[in-house]
Amino acid sequence: MDMESTSLEKATVFARARPLFKGLPEKLKAKVVELARKTIKLGKDEPRRVAHSLKVGLALNLVSLLYYFRPLYDNFGVSAMWAVMTVVVVFEYSVGATLGKGLNRGFATLLGGALSVGAHHLACLSGEIGEPIMLGFFVFLQAAASTFIRFFPKIKARYDYAVLIFILTFSLISVSGFRDDEIIELARRRLLTILIGGSVCVIISILICPVWAGLDLHNLIASNIGKLGNFLEGFGDEYIKTSKAGESEDDKSFLQQYKSVLTSKSNEESLANFAKWEPGHGRFKFRHPWNQYLKIGTLARQCAYRIDALNGYLNTEIQQPSSEMRYKIEEVCKEMSLECGKALKELALAIKATSQPSSANTNTHIENSKSAAKNLNSLLKSSVWEDTDFLAAVPVAAVASLLIEVVDCTEKIAESVYELASMANFKSIEATVLPEKSQIRQRDDVKSPAKVDCPHVCITVNEPTPAISGNGNPSVTTRNLEL
Amino acid sequence: MDMESTSLEKATVFARARPLFKGLPEKLKAKVVELARKTIKLGKDEPRRVAHSLKVGLALNLVSLLYYFRPLYDNFGVSAMWAVMTVVVVFEYSVGATLGKGLNRGFATLLGGALSVGAHHLACLSGEIGEPIMLGFFVFLQAAASTFIRFFPKIKARYDYAVLIFILTFSLISVSGFRDDEIIELARRRLLTILIGGSVCVIISILICPVWAGLDLHNLIASNIGKLGNFLEGFGDEYIKTSKAGESEDDKSFLQQYKSVLTSKSNEESLANFAKWEPGHGRFKFRHPWNQYLKIGTLARQCAYRIDALNGYLNTEIQQPSSEMRYKIEEVCKEMSLECGKALKELALAIKATSQPSSANTNTHIENSKSAAKNLNSLLKSSVWEDTDFLAAVPVAAVASLLIEVVDCTEKIAESVYELASMANFKSIEATVLPEKSQIRQRDDVKSPAKVDCPHVCITVNEPTPAISGNGNPSVTTRNLEL
Repeated sequence: MDMESTSLEKATVFARARPLFKGLPEKLKAKVVELARKTIKLGKDEPRRVAHSLKVGLALNLVSLLYYFRPLYDNFGVSAMWAVMTVVVVFEYSVGATLGKGLNRGFATLLGGALSVGAHHLACLSGEIGEPIMLGFFVFLQAAASTFIRFFPKIKARYDYAVLIFILTFSLISVSGFRDDEIIELARRRLLTILIGGSVCVIISILICPVWAGLDLHNLIASNIGKLGNFLEGFGDEYIKTSKAGESEDDKSFLQQYKSVLTSKSNEESLANFAKWEPGHGRFKFRHPWNQYLKIGTLARQCAYRIDALNGYLNTEIQQPSSEMRYKIEEVCKEMSLECGKALKELALAIKATSQPSSANTNTHIENSKSAAKNLNSLLKSSVWEDTDFLAAVPVAAVASLLIEVVDCTEKIAESVYELASMANFKSIEATVLPEKSQIRQRDDVKSPAKVDCPHVCITVNEPTPAISGNGNPSVTTRNLEL
Repeated sequence: MDMESTSLEKATVFARARPLFKGLPEKLKAKVVELARKTIKLGKDEPRRVAHSLKVGLALNLVSLLYYFRPLYDNFGVSAMWAVMTVVVVFEYSVGATLGKGLNRGFATLLGGALSVGAHHLACLSGEIGEPIMLGFFVFLQAAASTFIRFFPKIKARYDYAVLIFILTFSLISVSGFRDDEIIELARRRLLTILIGGSVCVIISILICPVWAGLDLHNLIASNIGKLGNFLEGFGDEYIKTSKAGESEDDKSFLQQYKSVLTSKSNEESLANFAKWEPGHGRFKFRHPWNQYLKIGTLARQCAYRIDALNGYLNTEIQQPSSEMRYKIEEVCKEMSLECGKALKELALAIKATSQPSSANTNTHIENSKSAAKNLNSLLKSSVWEDTDFLAAVPVAAVASLLIEVVDCTEKIAESVYELASMANFKSIEATVLPEKSQIRQRDDVKSPAKVDCPHVCITVNEPTPAISGNGNPSVTTRNLEL
C-alpha cells in the first residue's frame, strides 16, 4: 500500500515535471548535446587524454594515503599537503614535462631550503628587531634577482619552474622561520613530501600508458614533412585542373593540411624541451639528437612558406587559352612537384619508421625533380614564347620559379634527415632487396651491383640435371643463398 | 701597531692570492664578463624587466608582514603561507596576466573550497571505514573530470589555471578534512589569505610601472606591420642592385626584420588573452576589440610569407644582361613595392598613434601600387619580350607575380586596420592639415576642399594698410583663424 502511494506520488511528480522538462529551452538542450559531442570527440581523437585524466586521479589518491594511514600521517603531519600539491602541479601530459617539472621542483626545493636555513641563521644573529629587517632584505634581494634571472631566454626555456619554486621555498621557509624555530625539520619534511609526490607522478606517468614527448616530436616532424609531400603530390594535378576548368570543387582538404606546418614552431620547441628530460624509451636513446628535429622543422617551415605562395595560384582563376607551350611547361611543373612530393613522403615514412631513408629512392626522386627543372630551363630558353601573351605566362613563370625553390628546400630537408638518421643511428634498411626491386622495375636493363652484397637475395640457379618431373625433382632449384 | 700587522697580513694574503687569481682560467673570466654583459643588456633593452623584479620583491615583503606583525599572525597562523605562495605564483609580468591568474585563483579556490566542504560532509555520513573510500572516490572523480576539461582548447586558453587550482583546493581541503575537523575554518583562512596575496599582486602591478599586455599587443602589431613596410620600401632598391651588381653587402639588417613576423603568432595570442583581463587603461577601454588585432596579425603573417618568398630572389645571383624591357619591369616592380611599403608604414604609424589612419594617404599609396600593377600588365602584354631570353625573365615574372599578391595583402591589411580604428573609436586626425599638405606638395594644382574646414589652419590675409616698417606694424598680418 505504502509502495503504491509512493509510486503514485512519483507519477504525479513526473507528470508535473514533464511540461517543465519540455519547456526547457531548446537552445540549452542543443548546447548540452553539442558539449557532449565535443567531449566524446576530444576523447576519441586522442584516447591518451582520457588515460592521462585517470592517471592524475590515481596519483592523487595514492598521495592521499599519507593522510588516510595513521602511521604515515603521524610522521608527516600537515606537511602531507605538499605531496598533494606537488602531484597537482607537477603531473603533466607527457613524461618529459612531468620529469622536467619534478626534477626542477626537487632541486629548487633543496637549494631554496638550504639557503633559507642559512638566511634564517644570519637573521637570528641580528637580534629581535633586526631579524625581520634582515629577513625582509634577504627575501627582497633573492626574489628580485631570481625574477630577473627568469628573463634569460635559456633559463626561461628549461628552468623557469625551478626558479619559481626556488623563490617560493626560500621565501616561505625563511619567513615562517620567524615564527617557527623548527625550521630545519620544516624544510626536511617539505623536501621529503615533495619527493614522494614527485616520484608518484613520475612513476605513474612512465608505467601507465606513457606519453613520450620525444615520440610525439618525432611523429610531428614526420607528419609535417608528409603533409608537405601530400600537397606537392597533389599540386600538379590540381593546378592543371584549375587552369583548365576553373572549378573542380572536389575534396581538396589534403591540399590544406600543410597550413598547420606554418605555425607549428612553438609546439615543436616545447616538445623538444620536454623530450630532453626524458630517459631512453623505445627507439630513442637518452641523448637522442632532439635539436636536429628542430632544424628539420625550420627547413620544413621554409618549404611551407613557398608552398603557401604556390597555393595562392591554385585559387586564382586563369582564363587565357592554354597554348601548346604552356601545356608543356605545366607538364614539367607537375613532374617537379610530383617528384618533390614523393621524395618528401619517402623521407616522412623513413622518419616514422626510424629507418635510414633509402637514399637511393629519395635521391632518385630529387634527381628527377632536378632534371625536370633543367628541362624547364631548356624549354624556357627555346623562345617559342613569341606566340603567347607574356601576361598570361607570368603566373606560370611564378609557379615554375617557386617550384625551383621548393626543389631546393626538398634537397635541404633530405640532407638534414640523412644527418638525423646518422646521428641517431636509425636502423638501415638499404640492404633489404624489396624496396630496391620495385624501383628497378622501371629500369630492368640496369644491373645494380648493390644487389649482390645484400642478404636474403634469392638467386635462381639452373642445375645441369635433366628435367624429370616424375620423381619430384624440380627442374630448376631455387636456393636461398644467405650471402 | 695592531692595525699595521693586520694590514700587513692582508697584504700577504693578497700577494698569495694574486697568482691564484691570475691563474683563474681565462675561460671562466671571459664567461663571467659575458654573463655580466648579457645581464646588463637584458635590463637595458627592457628596463621594465628590472622594475618587475623589484615589484615582486616588494610584494613578497608586503605579504611577509602577515608573519612579522603579531596581531596579523595570530589571526591567520600558518595559513599566512598561502599569501606568500599566491604572490610567488600569481605575480606575472603584465597586468593582464596577473589579474587573470589572480581572478582564476580566487574563484577556483572559492568553488573548490565550497564543493570540498560538501564532499567532506557527504563522506562523514558513511562512517569510519567508508569515509576515506568516499573521499578517495570524490577526489578521483573530480581530478579526472577536471583534468579532462583542461584539454578543451577554450578552457586551456583562458581558464587552465583556474581548473588547476580547483583540483588543488578540492583535493587538499577534502583530504585534510579527514584529519582536521575545522575544515570550514581552514577553507575560510585559505581563501582570505589568497585574496590578500592576490590583491597585493594586482595593486602593485597596476600602480607601479604597469606593464599592459594590451598596449604591448597594440605596439607589437604596429611594429610588425612597420617591419613589413620597411622590407617593401627597401626591396625595390635592393632587388635592382642585386640584379645589377650581384653584391652590395652593406647593411641589409632592416630587410631581415620581417622574419620575426613569421613566428609571432603564439606571442600575439597570449598577449591578446592577457589583454582581455585588463581594465581600461590609457587609450584602451575595457572591451577593446583585441580579437581584431589577431585578425590583423594573421593577415600580416600571410603577407610575410609572400615577403619571405620575395626575399629568396634578393639572395640569388642573376647574371643575365639587363635588357631595356627588364629595366622597365623592374622599375614598375620597385614602384609597386615602394608604394605598398609606404601604405603599410602609414598604417603602422596610425596604429601606434591610435589614430584613424588617414585613408586618403593610405589609399593613395595603395591606388598607386595598383596602377603600377596595371602598368605592369600592359607592359607585359606588349610582347616586346621576343628579343629576350624567357629563362632570364622567369625570376622577374615571379617577383612581379608575388608583388601583385603583396598588393592584395596590403589592401586587406588596410581594410582590417580601418575596421579596428572604427571599432575602437580611434581619434580622427583626418582634419588636421599637416599630413595632407606634405602629400599635396606633389600636386599643387589640386585644391583640396578638405583644407577649408580644418581647424588650426593659418590663413594669410593681406591687410590693406600701407607698409610702415617704422612703427613695427607688420605689412602682412597673419591671423590664426580657429575655424
